Amino acid sequence: MKAKVRAHANIALIKYWGKEDEVLAIPNNSSLSLTLDKFYTETEVEFSSEFTSDEFYLNGVKDDATLSKVSNFTDLFRKLKGINDRVIVRSVNYVPTAAGLASSASAFAALGKAINVSLDLNLSDEELSTYVRQGSGSATRSLYGGLVQWTKGNSHESSKAVRIDPANFDIGMVVVIVNSKEKKISSREGMKQTVLTSPFYPAWPSEAEKDLDLMKVAIKNQDLEAIGKIAENNALKMHATMMAANPAIIYMEEKSMQAIRLVHELRAEGITAYFTMDAGPNVKIICQLSQAEVIKAKLLKEFNEEEIIVTGVGPDASII
Amino acid sequence: MKAKVRAHANIALIKYWGKEDEVLAIPNNSSLSLTLDKFYTETEVEFSSEFTSDEFYLNGVKDDATLSKVSNFTDLFRKLKGINDRVIVRSVNYVPTAAGLASSASAFAALGKAINVSLDLNLSDEELSTYVRQGSGSATRSLYGGLVQWTKGNSHESSKAVRIDPANFDIGMVVVIVNSKEKKISSREGMKQTVLTSPFYPAWPSEAEKDLDLMKVAIKNQDLEAIGKIAENNALKMHATMMAANPAIIYMEEKSMQAIRLVHELRAEGITAYFTMDAGPNVKIICQLSQAEVIKAKLLKEFNEEEIIVTGVGPDASII
Repeated sequence: MKAKVRAHANIALIKYWGKEDEVLAIPNNSSLSLTLDKFYTETEVEFSSEFTSDEFYLNGVKDDATLSKVSNFTDLFRKLKGINDRVIVRSVNYVPTAAGLASSASAFAALGKAINVSLDLNLSDEELSTYVRQGSGSATRSLYGGLVQWTKGNSHESSKAVRIDPANFDIGMVVVIVNSKEKKISSREGMKQTVLTSPFYPAWPSEAEKDLDLMKVAIKNQDLEAIGKIAENNALKMHATMMAANPAIIYMEEKSMQAIRLVHELRAEGITAYFTMDAGPNVKIICQLSQAEVIKAKLLKEFNEEEIIVTGVGPDASII
Repeated sequence: MKAKVRAHANIALIKYWGKEDEVLAIPNNSSLSLTLDKFYTETEVEFSSEFTSDEFYLNGVKDDATLSKVSNFTDLFRKLKGINDRVIVRSVNYVPTAAGLASSASAFAALGKAINVSLDLNLSDEELSTYVRQGSGSATRSLYGGLVQWTKGNSHESSKAVRIDPANFDIGMVVVIVNSKEKKISSREGMKQTVLTSPFYPAWPSEAEKDLDLMKVAIKNQDLEAIGKIAENNALKMHATMMAANPAIIYMEEKSMQAIRLVHELRAEGITAYFTMDAGPNVKIICQLSQAEVIKAKLLKEFNEEEIIVTGVGPDASII
């Protein structure tokens, strides 16, 4: 009744923004992401009928603030198995927490998969993604390596993720950590406020679906230039819906704009570099992995070594 | 056949963004602005049957690049008067040119009014605004002091500006000049590209009209807090439509975000301060004029003296 899993973070190239069903966590649009090698969570779970209560340790420290979230998530699986054993969860994040680097994605993917293994539930990754979704939507995509699609669906069973491409081509990401502090507004709150108040949000879901179709063609063609363009445009549209919310949600900071300016300069120099941003100030540059060091060298003129992380494509979540 | 006029710049609190009729310069939405004391253009025109060609001097320097624009604009009035006299125009801008500080607004307002006087056309300001509109849309609003509305209309005659309030209350602006260089994308091009490619643009005109209605109530109540909130939300919506254009139009720069952060800090300190931005990186802070020096002092912690201009409400365009 014990298992340990490593799951990698992912960065959406077509963003998930807005829920159709808050309880089941069914999104308003399908999304698509790239799993990253350098960012991951390792989670060990142990169930026992002898434990008197659930416990959660994050990075070695008992985390009672997050415990109820972990317990509620685990309940989904306990119910499935028909047991009431308590669990001890030990999770280590190799991702700056809550800085728009999707730590909740790798966290819930690792936790879900570790529970699946430890309880011998034998859920397939697709089935597992429907449960993981209820921990964190983007976690569905962190069960797989490569390029992953989370299909919107319209029910618990149909809103699920699949890998659509192993990303066996020259693609990577340069992550610029502009600010690693906790976000002022969580994604959860940000998307709620946007859906409720942004006059531009109604046009978002169909835009995202159109972008997804274009993106799948670009991926099939391994056309990095097109992948980057579509992703950058999609990210800016998401941020535009937030900026138009009332009150406005602006995740871009001074240093975000600085990184964006450098991306424009890189493009002017003939380098394939496009940016994407999640619900946070950090800037992720989509590029050829083989050109990542050139991009990093450019960024180092204005950023510090520790603010720049080069990463390739990450693998499936797996037992370690 | 000679006259000299000073017209003041204006900053839109409800933005003009997108044309319904490119030739007549009829906008897709009505707009509303505050005329500024510290920024203006002085323009002297002289018509003579003895001049062999039009001439245009900007800030004392012959400007042949802009001459055809000036000539075409002057033709509207020559036609009205039934004359073909050539004109010499001498214009001095007390506005950093093309930095999103609406130098074309004060320029065409001053030019139009100077022509009106020198040719004895006796157009009322409302009538004059319909001609001035064809030089630069926002110039319609620079014919007046205080708070001015440019009503969209649907014909040459009906798309015109009127002063709706003298702004005889404690209102001012602190302008943060982030970048006084020429814009990369002119407003004209920016709005064209947005109308053509932004999926969020279709929702803009009705949003702007709604904001205008709210703003007029706030002005009637002399409720600066409401004026600021509505203006900031309206500006962010305009920038959101651009950000979603393809390719994206992003006027915000690093220092724009820095100024915006300071505005948020000022608000957290209990000071009424809201920002607006035009098609450029500069940030204009709407405030009580009596608090402008407090705001300036805060900005001076991160900006230089010459980057900050405090201004009150400007008067009508007038003969000098």
